[in-house]
Amino acid sequence: MSNFGSDNGAGAHPKIVEALMAASTGSVPAYGNDELTLRVEHQLAELFEREITVLLMATGTAANCVGLATLCSPFGGIYAHSEAHIVNDESTAPEFFTNGARQFSVGGVSAKPDLDELKRVIEVSGARGVHSVQPSVIALSNLTELGGRFSNDEILAYGDLAKSKDMKLFMDGARFANALVGGGETPADLTWRAGVDVLSFGATKNGAMAAEALIFFNPEEAKLAEFHRKRAGHLWSKHRFLAAQFDAYLHDNLWLELARTANEKMLSLRQGIDSCEAVSVLAGGDGNELFVAMSPEHAETLLELGHLFYAWPSLTQGYRLVTSFTTTDAEIDEFCADLKRL
Amino acid sequence: MSNFGSDNGAGAHPKIVEALMAASTGSVPAYGNDELTLRVEHQLAELFEREITVLLMATGTAANCVGLATLCSPFGGIYAHSEAHIVNDESTAPEFFTNGARQFSVGGVSAKPDLDELKRVIEVSGARGVHSVQPSVIALSNLTELGGRFSNDEILAYGDLAKSKDMKLFMDGARFANALVGGGETPADLTWRAGVDVLSFGATKNGAMAAEALIFFNPEEAKLAEFHRKRAGHLWSKHRFLAAQFDAYLHDNLWLELARTANEKMLSLRQGIDSCEAVSVLAGGDGNELFVAMSPEHAETLLELGHLFYAWPSLTQGYRLVTSFTTTDAEIDEFCADLKRL
Amino acid sequence: MSNFGSDNGAGAHPKIVEALMAASTGSVPAYGNDELTLRVEHQLAELFEREITVLLMATGTAANCVGLATLCSPFGGIYAHSEAHIVNDESTAPEFFTNGARQFSVGGVSAKPDLDELKRVIEVSGARGVHSVQPSVIALSNLTELGGRFSNDEILAYGDLAKSKDMKLFMDGARFANALVGGGETPADLTWRAGVDVLSFGATKNGAMAAEALIFFNPEEAKLAEFHRKRAGHLWSKHRFLAAQFDAYLHDNLWLELARTANEKMLSLRQGIDSCEAVSVLAGGDGNELFVAMSPEHAETLLELGHLFYAWPSLTQGYRLVTSFTTTDAEIDEFCADLKRL
Amino acid sequence: MSNFGSDNGAGAHPKIVEALMAASTGSVPAYGNDELTLRVEHQLAELFEREITVLLMATGTAANCVGLATLCSPFGGIYAHSEAHIVNDESTAPEFFTNGARQFSVGGVSAKPDLDELKRVIEVSGARGVHSVQPSVIALSNLTELGGRFSNDEILAYGDLAKSKDMKLFMDGARFANALVGGGETPADLTWRAGVDVLSFGATKNGAMAAEALIFFNPEEAKLAEFHRKRAGHLWSKHRFLAAQFDAYLHDNLWLELARTANEKMLSLRQGIDSCEAVSVLAGGDGNELFVAMSPEHAETLLELGHLFYAWPSLTQGYRLVTSFTTTDAEIDEFCADLKRL
Repeated sequence: MSNFGSDNGAGAHPKIVEALMAASTGSVPAYGNDELTLRVEHQLAELFEREITVLLMATGTAANCVGLATLCSPFGGIYAHSEAHIVNDESTAPEFFTNGARQFSVGGVSAKPDLDELKRVIEVSGARGVHSVQPSVIALSNLTELGGRFSNDEILAYGDLAKSKDMKLFMDGARFANALVGGGETPADLTWRAGVDVLSFGATKNGAMAAEALIFFNPEEAKLAEFHRKRAGHLWSKHRFLAAQFDAYLHDNLWLELARTANEKMLSLRQGIDSCEAVSVLAGGDGNELFVAMSPEHAETLLELGHLFYAWPSLTQGYRLVTSFTTTDAEIDEFCADLKRL
Repeated sequence: MSNFGSDNGAGAHPKIVEALMAASTGSVPAYGNDELTLRVEHQLAELFEREITVLLMATGTAANCVGLATLCSPFGGIYAHSEAHIVNDESTAPEFFTNGARQFSVGGVSAKPDLDELKRVIEVSGARGVHSVQPSVIALSNLTELGGRFSNDEILAYGDLAKSKDMKLFMDGARFANALVGGGETPADLTWRAGVDVLSFGATKNGAMAAEALIFFNPEEAKLAEFHRKRAGHLWSKHRFLAAQFDAYLHDNLWLELARTANEKMLSLRQGIDSCEAVSVLAGGDGNELFVAMSPEHAETLLELGHLFYAWPSLTQGYRLVTSFTTTDAEIDEFCADLKRL
Repeated sequence: MSNFGSDNGAGAHPKIVEALMAASTGSVPAYGNDELTLRVEHQLAELFEREITVLLMATGTAANCVGLATLCSPFGGIYAHSEAHIVNDESTAPEFFTNGARQFSVGGVSAKPDLDELKRVIEVSGARGVHSVQPSVIALSNLTELGGRFSNDEILAYGDLAKSKDMKLFMDGARFANALVGGGETPADLTWRAGVDVLSFGATKNGAMAAEALIFFNPEEAKLAEFHRKRAGHLWSKHRFLAAQFDAYLHDNLWLELARTANEKMLSLRQGIDSCEAVSVLAGGDGNELFVAMSPEHAETLLELGHLFYAWPSLTQGYRLVTSFTTTDAEIDEFCADLKRL
Repeated sequence: MSNFGSDNGAGAHPKIVEALMAASTGSVPAYGNDELTLRVEHQLAELFEREITVLLMATGTAANCVGLATLCSPFGGIYAHSEAHIVNDESTAPEFFTNGARQFSVGGVSAKPDLDELKRVIEVSGARGVHSVQPSVIALSNLTELGGRFSNDEILAYGDLAKSKDMKLFMDGARFANALVGGGETPADLTWRAGVDVLSFGATKNGAMAAEALIFFNPEEAKLAEFHRKRAGHLWSKHRFLAAQFDAYLHDNLWLELARTANEKMLSLRQGIDSCEAVSVLAGGDGNELFVAMSPEHAETLLELGHLFYAWPSLTQGYRLVTSFTTTDAEIDEFCADLKRL
């Protein structure tokens, strides 16, 4: 038995829940006017090496969509890879929060938007003035939705494109930790130094209970964000409990440790898989996600043996495997053993 | 020093946080397909003595607005007291979630909508067919926003009005527990037996961290609710952590115990206040909220002495005092002592 | 037989339709890039004695709501009299176009917002920061919806209030012509010189087929208006046909002549009514609208005799009488004769 | 000199404007409750050989988007060819009217959605339950946006796909007349007999001033349409002027005569073009639109010579030529003569 279904099937790290316990007593101001929230804001500013505006929310959809709504008018266009989470997994939340902006999606290897296609789609879609959408935001995910990792250099190319078109660059960082520890760059390198204007910095998939930080690298651009958060019902009254999660998440680099564990488990899993003929790797592996091809019969057999993972509808005979900070070597060994027996 | 600012300034009850701890290990299905969620659904169905549909969310604004959006088309009208939380404290969230329905507000003692005025406003506002809004939802709060309590009989009058107009009756129960323990009726008496179609059943203000249950008493009417929740970013991936809070909240009637404590403290506070000439009671007192009038100078003095409470903009020289499960006798004594010295 | 039902029951003035005929031949640029449109823009700028931005649309709801959406964010509040057209007759169009801003309505004689109440409602509704709506627009109608007329002085008081609150002043001028000819002031006096930021300048009710001009007195504020118009489907491809109506409407002051006729007929009607005991005047009479009280039985009798007019739901036993440029003396005489016989 | 820029650059046919003149006198009920409107509804029901619900509006964007909003919830997905008007030329109107539904676009020859790709995109985009959009509407244009024509057989394949997926089939018929006269089928054949649920039946591009009819072939499904129209500001008070246009348009088959003229002119134009080496046909020609490739230099020369036509951004070196009922043989001859001289 193993669970490679999703990193959101894992629970919360004990240190995160202990922080909730510690924060649960005493009267503190509501709605984010508490000291714990202030501390987290300072920690994040330090981590990213600049003045920022931070908004904490409980879900990735909320953080992504409050960010997009702040950057993009209802007449605007948002451009992402066709595999992106905002395209496939958030219902019509981006349209809802932006009051009807449009999403455009393009192809590209490893769920990285193909730059030429991206440029072309932006230009064609915005070519007819008031009759067209107004191209406004390029949205990347790092890790990408197919488990790839963007380097500073790669991101910079999108940042330059955004600037040249007077657009903004948004990054969905639901698995930002896994991307970061997968390379030798700093948080600043992977964001504003590469042209990212706004980051949705995830903690939920990496050990938190429900906590994401929406980070604006240019506080001027954040002015309307708090209104978008409030009217979507995402401003917590007991805001300390969002802050407490982040406080523990950042403390002593817990977040990096958890992401490193998940990535290392993925490395092991991948090594095990590489020697199996029944499956072939399609994408991913840079962080804690791997996409493999196998026959539906083989997949069925594995599921019946108690292994958990999901089909990926856009990939032919494709399946996704995700590790997390709770993945055990036993799970990996058992999965690979069963794989070999197929 | 005392804190009567709000029940959302209190932390979370230890049993709630212990439940989070207990739920934090192990792999379970995401998005509410876990056993703990199922258990909470059963507990709530039992509590309300009928088949229901339940959706858990983290904030009251979310629960209220997903409920309203499910009941009310974008062409619809929502009718509430002018003091209601959905009118005053949720930005334009009701308009946002309903895609542009309109709120109408009426007067009435103790923040209970005046029935005659309500009927008249419904009729006038809906009198011009396609040119008018379509009257759709009557919304009550119990406790009311001025700390009053609706009995079964009182609610029934609104339920009958709603039925006669082919409208739905919604109840914001952010302080439903405080209303319930303030009288001798059952949860069913205060809701569907009195004509309530949908209840936003609060836990956050009564000891939870961030947890509200949106309850549909007619599951047929709930069909679109899950879509509204998802697209607003309120479907938690690690849904177990919403369920765990409710599980502890309902277990051994913790919720009733906490509400009883808060209400008893309010009774003590009120008794202390009644003997002070500097303040007079304006409204409330049925549950854990009291609204008093005093001079701004007196209020200022009390605030400087370290007491915390807020002015209530719609009441002349009005201030709100709220007790919670964490309120101590010492706070009450100190506040009343300072009151007497004014 | 008479028709005092509405000025929109009248047809179009022959000169307006002749202008359509004249404009119907030849190839001209679409979407407002034609010379006729340019000419109308110049005519309007001259009429209002300043640089303006003009957008033509076919309906009053469109012109009002594109204007409001341009001035007001989705978090904003719009404040009007409870009788206003945007409050009662446009379904939820204001919420739709603004993506969910909220309307607040206040009382006041003759459908003129009571200034004290208006100020109080603005302050109370906006008192809680991000939890409140952001007060954004004060909306007047001139003529008011109860047939009253605002003078420059009166408007100025709202303009000053708007400025003091950092809000904008919007004017629904569906019957602006009737208001103008009812006094001795200029178009500029009744708009920007009194603090009006945006005017919805109607022609439809005064002889056009379907034509309204949305006028921004500060072109800077108009930047997003064309996007709102386009995405609401109100940018005509054969825009010349909107412009042609306005060209004829303004030519040789046709618009003033038609409004004068309508107002004079109202004066005659009112004189006739004043001598009848069966009806009493409730409001209006400054332009081409009068609101009277009579018993439902009397109203029924008149309707059966072939007179057309409508009940006004918000006024007890209230009925509205409207004259237009097509009203005849015979209609007035017959109506008054039947009134006397009641 | 010639004008092949667009059929919306043409004026209105004299008979249409005469009908406006005839309709301009007398008092009739507003908002579509007049006899002329009733007559047009009957005429259209007869034309389409079944009971229908009709809503008249002034623009194609309005008719398209009121139709889509009536068929598609805010959680829904709308699937069209990437060249479709609703995708490229209506800003974010479809998102606006539907309150945030999503558009998906696919490829396909002649702007006809490729059936296999369409099926795949529907299935992938709707594969994740509440996390996905809910596939709701397939939208075709006939003529297609690249000037192609759908036959009954072809449409039927989309109708069957829609039914098999519990979706609706919408048709943008801005140039329905040109499609109809391009083949031997009846209006019913090209719509409901082929599975079309809702048709946006255009008149503006074919001789009207501003008039489109939104037609529901299943009146049950039309219930909310009038609310969508009203709240978008598209319900005309002097509705007779929309009806009058359609009355003249349908009378004595004027609409077919005008479309036949436009199509015949296109045939002439195409014959002239076929013999020119400087241009090659890319798409269209089934109705009154043709898409050709030529070098930018050649295009520039022609424009300088006074010919009017537009580049088509999505086609490499592509240009669109459109004929209308006002196109003259002289225009065609002059254009072809200049083409030959390139």
